[in-house]
Amino acid sequence: MQFTAAQIAMLINGKVEGNDSATVDSFGKIEEAKASQLAFLANPKYEDFLYTTKASVIIVNESQELKEPISAALIRVPDAYSAFATLLHKYQEIMRQQLTGIQEPSFIDKTAVLGEHVFVGAFCYISQHAHIGNNVKLYPGAYIGDNVKVGDNSVILPGVKIYHDCIIGKNVTIHAGTVIGGDGFGFAPQPDGSYKKVPQIGNVVVEDFVEIGSNSCIDRATIGSTIVKSGAKLDNLLQIAHNVEVGNNTVIAAQAGISGSTKIGSNVQIGGQAGIVGHIQIADGTRINAQSGVSKSIKTPNTAVTGSPAADYTSALRSQAVTRNLPDLEKRVADLEKLVQQLLQERVPL
Amino acid sequence: MQFTAAQIAMLINGKVEGNDSATVDSFGKIEEAKASQLAFLANPKYEDFLYTTKASVIIVNESQELKEPISAALIRVPDAYSAFATLLHKYQEIMRQQLTGIQEPSFIDKTAVLGEHVFVGAFCYISQHAHIGNNVKLYPGAYIGDNVKVGDNSVILPGVKIYHDCIIGKNVTIHAGTVIGGDGFGFAPQPDGSYKKVPQIGNVVVEDFVEIGSNSCIDRATIGSTIVKSGAKLDNLLQIAHNVEVGNNTVIAAQAGISGSTKIGSNVQIGGQAGIVGHIQIADGTRINAQSGVSKSIKTPNTAVTGSPAADYTSALRSQAVTRNLPDLEKRVADLEKLVQQLLQERVPL
Amino acid sequence: MQFTAAQIAMLINGKVEGNDSATVDSFGKIEEAKASQLAFLANPKYEDFLYTTKASVIIVNESQELKEPISAALIRVPDAYSAFATLLHKYQEIMRQQLTGIQEPSFIDKTAVLGEHVFVGAFCYISQHAHIGNNVKLYPGAYIGDNVKVGDNSVILPGVKIYHDCIIGKNVTIHAGTVIGGDGFGFAPQPDGSYKKVPQIGNVVVEDFVEIGSNSCIDRATIGSTIVKSGAKLDNLLQIAHNVEVGNNTVIAAQAGISGSTKIGSNVQIGGQAGIVGHIQIADGTRINAQSGVSKSIKTPNTAVTGSPAADYTSALRSQAVTRNLPDLEKRVADLEKLVQQLLQERVPL
Repeated sequence: MQFTAAQIAMLINGKVEGNDSATVDSFGKIEEAKASQLAFLANPKYEDFLYTTKASVIIVNESQELKEPISAALIRVPDAYSAFATLLHKYQEIMRQQLTGIQEPSFIDKTAVLGEHVFVGAFCYISQHAHIGNNVKLYPGAYIGDNVKVGDNSVILPGVKIYHDCIIGKNVTIHAGTVIGGDGFGFAPQPDGSYKKVPQIGNVVVEDFVEIGSNSCIDRATIGSTIVKSGAKLDNLLQIAHNVEVGNNTVIAAQAGISGSTKIGSNVQIGGQAGIVGHIQIADGTRINAQSGVSKSIKTPNTAVTGSPAADYTSALRSQAVTRNLPDLEKRVADLEKLVQQLLQERVPL
Repeated sequence: MQFTAAQIAMLINGKVEGNDSATVDSFGKIEEAKASQLAFLANPKYEDFLYTTKASVIIVNESQELKEPISAALIRVPDAYSAFATLLHKYQEIMRQQLTGIQEPSFIDKTAVLGEHVFVGAFCYISQHAHIGNNVKLYPGAYIGDNVKVGDNSVILPGVKIYHDCIIGKNVTIHAGTVIGGDGFGFAPQPDGSYKKVPQIGNVVVEDFVEIGSNSCIDRATIGSTIVKSGAKLDNLLQIAHNVEVGNNTVIAAQAGISGSTKIGSNVQIGGQAGIVGHIQIADGTRINAQSGVSKSIKTPNTAVTGSPAADYTSALRSQAVTRNLPDLEKRVADLEKLVQQLLQERVPL
Repeated sequence: MQFTAAQIAMLINGKVEGNDSATVDSFGKIEEAKASQLAFLANPKYEDFLYTTKASVIIVNESQELKEPISAALIRVPDAYSAFATLLHKYQEIMRQQLTGIQEPSFIDKTAVLGEHVFVGAFCYISQHAHIGNNVKLYPGAYIGDNVKVGDNSVILPGVKIYHDCIIGKNVTIHAGTVIGGDGFGFAPQPDGSYKKVPQIGNVVVEDFVEIGSNSCIDRATIGSTIVKSGAKLDNLLQIAHNVEVGNNTVIAAQAGISGSTKIGSNVQIGGQAGIVGHIQIADGTRINAQSGVSKSIKTPNTAVTGSPAADYTSALRSQAVTRNLPDLEKRVADLEKLVQQLLQERVPL
């Protein structure tokens, strides 16, 4: 699709300077852009490229001064980076809205219900009594189990598998390869050392405006629901065990793992590769550093923790500093031992 | 499907109290159950819900006393929780047995052999000379490589990929997205700094009654077999490298990783995100705490370890306690240094 | 396929001893091999099996002495293990070259371009304007997004998903379930505590001779490219975040994670489960131990680090040793405190 500088300026409330019928058909970085591309300049470090770039249209800050004449059309806005991001978002939405229809071959059970403007990619599988909302986009090879509900405007990327009975909210995005609703890891030890499976008959509920990365796993509850609340953002390769709750607007970075039945509050930030044991509570606003291992409930909101086992951030950093100097500390103790020994030998007997 | 209280009581050897023709068609938690649902009460904390729940049938302990009359039919059993779990298990088995037949489109090589009562979901791919046992259920989008054998009664969930020559036992369950038999990570360094692939021509053998979670990876052996022995239970997102052996009834929690050629004994318990280096042995009954890093063989059975590098559990906990108090210990040393300095200055010259 | 001892000897420049028309049709370990299998002996520990194995042909070192007559045909080479590996590699290449053609059903957009001798497995999806090079093998269920390029001789295993605009080089291997080009994890916090997605419009570039394991995730750049350079070898379940660069011939073991915008140099070795924070540089030849947490740039080439937070390998090992003896050190301090107290009480007042 082609857009003119004037059309773009309208979308982002900017003012065109130069040729307002200059056209662009794609995006580029200012240092690499070709003719007919749109670029932006936000970071002053890149200012020199303004005079050498081949981009046809450039979004700049209102305050940007020019040292030389420029051939590209400029669009001036209060904040060039955020205007550029807004533009991209709108562009991607437009492209995605154009994706509609049912590609063949796909497998749609006759009891499944599909909303309007739905896209079903080839090799998608939609099981009995599934309910797919309006404007939902199912990319190729997605698997939707029995009775699953996917809310309006949600986007399910290639090869996502959603087991039976799970419920996905509106405006949710789930990236490729993620598995929603696999069995929780529950096995009862038997007297002979073997294990007997504890049936996992709950489900997973993913609320509105959640985004989940690639190849993550969110297990179904033993009974009841594993819940990811509205606005939570989950990265790649996460383990969310059975009966966990993830609070509103909580952010979890890649490769972190939450064990069974733990309840994470709202606006919590969990770093990459962090682990949290089962059956504990994490207060709202907690910040858990990457690679931390949290083994106890955190009850005070807005606490920051680090380390494994995790401890208060400030005191953990102090311990780490002393730990690094431990060989030194040991030498100080050895020196003291010598001196005290000397003093003991020299002392005047009472 | 609908069941009466009397039918359910027969399945779990219980005694009905109340209306034995009350019918249920699904399961619920006692605190949320609706009419026509079956619930159970095992935990005394939830006893009050017995008098308010809308469930039509409730499984309770034999010993349960009633403070008020109850409208639901009760089924009394020695252990309500375990009876409920048994029931669910039977229910899921019945549902799964009903899954049979070959959905279209699927791809089944003409040299592949399929047993009786098999289910092949749409978009499944079964390669040359594969052998699928009786009652096996292949969910949609499963990939079965050349010469793969899948034993009777095994269940392969959506999008599982099993590379050529791997052998899956009987009564095995493998959850969505797991990859069995990908190439082990073997590369020989060359004089110019590049790496040359070491061909991985072994396979993976998964014995009977094993369960494997979602998005896990079990790599094929360089030569010979990577083996997961009978009764082992493996969680999500695991890395099991080439030529590893996992012993009978060993349990491995999510995101743990076992490096190449390591042999894990029987009845070992490995916590989430733990890592084990290559080419070591782990004795039977070892318990490895979450996030531990095991760098040496563990030779004494039933040892418990924690930390990275992992150490004996009790002494590691003691070290951790002292570590937390390190800033304090450093202050004590500094105080001693001052006092000893003072004593040295005050000493009576000999 | 069947090969004679003479044919095999030609492929690996060896000399046959015994029946040079002995035929084999598969490979086996010397201790388990059956008749009509090819085995090798490199490790003297296994020498006894030379006299008991049922293998029809055995590759041995030139220098191998025989204590008894042997029924199998021997092939003598300077280095038996490496000759065996070479042979396997050639065998697998031959087998893979035979894979060609387009299986049905598959989905190939009419604007996609396919090279010669390509294999497209059933259930593969090739999107608009994708370009598949010569001799590329796409295993069943692979997903290739819009505008993706896959270079000559690359092998894409089952269920790999490559998002739009990503570029895969020549002679690349990507194992099952891996996701290339999922959205980077970028969300801007809003005043109300919610997060707004930062569009991720860059791509992923995987250069020539790269191998990537199973179920790994390499996210697309926010703008520009996430890059994996020529010859890098990546294991299973890796997280490579947006805008990361992985240098030439760098090796990354399973379950490691690299955060956004970090640049990894050439010939770096990263152990399993290691984590690296975002926006740092790692010098060429750095060795990062398993489970390390690297929080600062490493500027000196060929440094070895370990621990979380990671520190120089030698000093970290010294700290770890002292840490293990901490309870002991604390006792020494307590003893000193008692002695000094005693000395203070005994001192002769000035």
